[in-house]
Amino acid sequence: MPWLPALDRHAATPLWKQIVDHAVRLADEGNLPSGERLPPSRALAAELGINRSTVCRAYEELAALGYLESRPGSYTTVRGRARPLAARPAAASLLDWNRAMAPDVLDACVSAMRQPRPAVPGDGWIDFSTLSADPDLCPVDDFRRAVRSVLLDQPRSILDYGDSAGYAPLRETLASRMRAHGIAVSPDEVVLTQGAQQGLDLVVRLLARPGAGVAVESPTYALVLPLLRLHGLRAVEIPLGADGMDLDVLESWLEREPPAFVYTMPGFQNPTGLTTTQAHRERLLTLCEMRRVPIVEDGFEEEMKYFGRAVLPLKSMDAHGIVIYVGTFSKVVFPGLRIGWIAAEREFIRRLLWLSRFTSLSGNLLSQAAVERFCHAGRYDGYLRRVHATFRRRMTMLLRSLEKDVGGDRLEWTRPMGGCTLWARVPGGRREDERALVDAAASERLAITPGSPFFATPPDQLAFRVSIAHVKVHEIEDGCRRLRRALARLTTRGEVRRAR
Amino acid sequence: MPWLPALDRHAATPLWKQIVDHAVRLADEGNLPSGERLPPSRALAAELGINRSTVCRAYEELAALGYLESRPGSYTTVRGRARPLAARPAAASLLDWNRAMAPDVLDACVSAMRQPRPAVPGDGWIDFSTLSADPDLCPVDDFRRAVRSVLLDQPRSILDYGDSAGYAPLRETLASRMRAHGIAVSPDEVVLTQGAQQGLDLVVRLLARPGAGVAVESPTYALVLPLLRLHGLRAVEIPLGADGMDLDVLESWLEREPPAFVYTMPGFQNPTGLTTTQAHRERLLTLCEMRRVPIVEDGFEEEMKYFGRAVLPLKSMDAHGIVIYVGTFSKVVFPGLRIGWIAAEREFIRRLLWLSRFTSLSGNLLSQAAVERFCHAGRYDGYLRRVHATFRRRMTMLLRSLEKDVGGDRLEWTRPMGGCTLWARVPGGRREDERALVDAAASERLAITPGSPFFATPPDQLAFRVSIAHVKVHEIEDGCRRLRRALARLTTRGEVRRAR
Repeated sequence: MPWLPALDRHAATPLWKQIVDHAVRLADEGNLPSGERLPPSRALAAELGINRSTVCRAYEELAALGYLESRPGSYTTVRGRARPLAARPAAASLLDWNRAMAPDVLDACVSAMRQPRPAVPGDGWIDFSTLSADPDLCPVDDFRRAVRSVLLDQPRSILDYGDSAGYAPLRETLASRMRAHGIAVSPDEVVLTQGAQQGLDLVVRLLARPGAGVAVESPTYALVLPLLRLHGLRAVEIPLGADGMDLDVLESWLEREPPAFVYTMPGFQNPTGLTTTQAHRERLLTLCEMRRVPIVEDGFEEEMKYFGRAVLPLKSMDAHGIVIYVGTFSKVVFPGLRIGWIAAEREFIRRLLWLSRFTSLSGNLLSQAAVERFCHAGRYDGYLRRVHATFRRRMTMLLRSLEKDVGGDRLEWTRPMGGCTLWARVPGGRREDERALVDAAASERLAITPGSPFFATPPDQLAFRVSIAHVKVHEIEDGCRRLRRALARLTTRGEVRRAR
Repeated sequence: MPWLPALDRHAATPLWKQIVDHAVRLADEGNLPSGERLPPSRALAAELGINRSTVCRAYEELAALGYLESRPGSYTTVRGRARPLAARPAAASLLDWNRAMAPDVLDACVSAMRQPRPAVPGDGWIDFSTLSADPDLCPVDDFRRAVRSVLLDQPRSILDYGDSAGYAPLRETLASRMRAHGIAVSPDEVVLTQGAQQGLDLVVRLLARPGAGVAVESPTYALVLPLLRLHGLRAVEIPLGADGMDLDVLESWLEREPPAFVYTMPGFQNPTGLTTTQAHRERLLTLCEMRRVPIVEDGFEEEMKYFGRAVLPLKSMDAHGIVIYVGTFSKVVFPGLRIGWIAAEREFIRRLLWLSRFTSLSGNLLSQAAVERFCHAGRYDGYLRRVHATFRRRMTMLLRSLEKDVGGDRLEWTRPMGGCTLWARVPGGRREDERALVDAAASERLAITPGSPFFATPPDQLAFRVSIAHVKVHEIEDGCRRLRRALARLTTRGEVRRAR
């Protein structure tokens, strides 16, 4: 039976993907005749000695790729699929793209992206790396209902161009949700963006003065660094202490030169999970007001507080309109819908709308309307309660298990009040061992995110990010034990060198 | 009954919108108590002496805004709706945004956008202005089925982050659709974008060398002009003849300075509707190959040819990888989903993917997958046939009616082979009369798009664009008669001055 792939249980490629690749190869070589009946998933699973859900996932993917078809009440069969003609063999381009594309700054951005990259988790792995809404928590049925109701009630308007600012009822919803965090904005002061990343790009475009510095926490969100560079800005790294960026360092730097803006994630910071205090926020705001420096507040997980008392966003205290707030749904729910937003002072919004019109006309109305419907029906609040309960359990388990299964002598870590990540550091460890640590973890089938990419100039330390976004609570202890073994492996091989 | 608004049939605001505004005002003032029963649409329509569909549209909008609720089998009632707190009174901002936002180039872009703007059509108007897919043709049911099947088959993967390149099966579909136009690209050479506008922005970002010139047709797509300016580029306008941009002029300019790129819309050009010949395309390509200048080919209506023989896109003859092809669905179907794409040489695509990752991570997977499903099921081809038949009838009627009801002595116009627009010019008319012409048409309740915004430096002529995208075939004769009256009104009042 040509359907029997040779599976490699230890490969980085997950088993379901190996099945898919195998079938695609057969089909493309013409060895999987159209109309051929597929073995039932249960039978194939038994034959291969793997989980049936793995086979189902592979079949689902093959169907999505157009290689299978199934009729209700019948077998699934191989689909006769028109393959694209072989593309023309690449002639040497007449153009030197390096010259044609002037912004070689892009190449500089790419090459400045720090190594190592995290390993990609496969079957049997524990994923302490991924940071985005957990698909297993995704309220699929509620969302399906929201989409359906939008497409029944107002299909034509929703499939037509919308306003550059985004679907008005969702802007109203967001404005009123932000009020729950003390931010008083009207819907007119809210603009929807294609996720927070496009929001940041638009904001940086508006605030960029090439050559100017931008104060960022150190470490900071990895993908903001190439974005700043792309716009000719310098990241000025302000050390991050237990209570956020060191404001004394910031203040003395602000005295020396006027920056383009300050970029901060005051809550559940990515990567450290740290949340700044009310007092820290007030002083940061005052410093920037005195120097008339805009603050870009990345509230990417504003609604993910599940321990302790709420701290108000900077934007809520922004009496002078210097704070530009960037929000997103993607870390909580539906990252694939790419819904983020910006709340800012009217003059800023006015320009933002023009920029947004010139560069993308308008956003995806269907998704905006479906999310509005989802929030409106109270589904979002219910979902948020479930997510909080889940993440509270995961974070509690992680903190407990790090203590119990790894231990404070081998590792130091932060204690987040919410969100999905914490930051861990090997005492006395050195940066040159980062690749070895990621590899040691990978050989335990554990994915962690190495620390260097979160710095423009990484310090000589051995640190990494642990995310609970995609890990189940029952996997966490096992994950921590794998982490201990990975750390032990490094130490045994004498690979952890001590920093000076 | 507080529900009875005073309607103004001659206002620019359509009747349904007047009803909505009236109800929102009442509700926000507290004069529409929660739970109050709405008059049935039929009764309200009779009472106001208007069409019932107008009332239904108003009710639909009010429901979307959250002001109404209806339960199956019951009356529609007013919904108790939490209004956002009044926003904080705007304090004078501490920041001088003009200084904080360095790119005052944005303001320059905005102020350089040419006047006059077209009038916004209301009830009873004939719309010769709007250019986007006709919502009345929108295959809503088929699309609803496509969304439903995607959300049933692969909800979790579709609501999670996707690849920066976009949903792979849709890239395959596009690659194979482009083959029908002679373009041999592999799915790896296709990147999905948030409509053609974001595609253009990405392309311009990659090709921009501040200060460099970009050759554009004159007239050209209005929104490409501010986009070029935003990136510090100069639009160099090459006159457009009956067979596309004047290649002698282009050639002599290319000899003088190396441009960043050439931007062209070879088919059904916006605004003129002109399609260049095969010979023109070959010469344009050769000129650019000789000078090693990239061509950005905007194939925004590639699939909208409904008269005469097909002409191959430039990209299909691009043996040396100098053509960057920008495509979109928005002029044919589902503009609100914002699905466009770029097909180009691999080295360009490699950079594009990085840029796209830095600036938006990924696109909207749900819409991409739904469109793929829609195309895959053969619905798109069926839809396209219906659209072609409809537009062929509309364009035939328009050309006939211009001849019969306006006449060649009053107006000259292009004869498009497809697409949605034609370009009309008043013989001997002058640009200073443009506002008067738009107003004269508006007083006939006819919306046309004035010509100036399609030029960086508008010539002294009186021209405008006529679009059939949103006009019904039975409205076209009436539209042309209104146009004749508008032209006559200008002439009678002596407002058409003769150009030197």
